Amino acid sequence: MSVTPNPSMRVLRHVVLFAFKPTATAEKIREIEQAFAALPGRIDAIRDFEWGRDVSVEGKAEGYTHCFFVTFAEEAGRDTYLPHPSHKAFGQILHPHLEKVLVLDYWTNR
Amino acid sequence: MSVTPNPSMRVLRHVVLFAFKPTATAEKIREIEQAFAALPGRIDAIRDFEWGRDVSVEGKAEGYTHCFFVTFAEEAGRDTYLPHPSHKAFGQILHPHLEKVLVLDYWTNR
Repeated sequence: MSVTPNPSMRVLRHVVLFAFKPTATAEKIREIEQAFAALPGRIDAIRDFEWGRDVSVEGKAEGYTHCFFVTFAEEAGRDTYLPHPSHKAFGQILHPHLEKVLVLDYWTNR
Repeated sequence: MSVTPNPSMRVLRHVVLFAFKPTATAEKIREIEQAFAALPGRIDAIRDFEWGRDVSVEGKAEGYTHCFFVTFAEEAGRDTYLPHPSHKAFGQILHPHLEKVLVLDYWTNR
């Protein structure tokens, strides 16, 4: 099981954690999940994408309930992604329901 | 570029973010990075592993400077990992220098 076909090739990971406001309904959260998951089909710079809901058992998630894990081949990909109209449109759906967000990017080491 | 050879096969991701105390030297942080990166060689339950230092440009990393990204095939893998003697020994190296930690696990969706 390998994260990239060629482990010697580094990629740029973009780790996004969300916590939603108490007023965000399950239906609205599902809509946001689907809207984020639609971005790889709209933004070519996204080379890989996955996401999931927190199932940790250590009680250290600091209230974050979702992780979205976006991969770029290079910084230029991220530079395209961040201001992309589809990303901005997603933000419009997200922000009324967002309690807090954490974003950390890294180049992969093994 | 695919995160798993078979995208239909879900895996359990274990996302670990660290912030270090101001007293942690660069040398000590490098030692901790290397000690974490040695765990996949010591704990068979770890199916994939990567890590990196924050290079995000959005100013939303909340002080966290490192991400370690551990993959298990199943919950039993995590159950083996968390109390594993090698993981506990790593904790001894880490904790004197740890300012804060965030852990979020998820089953992969695409």
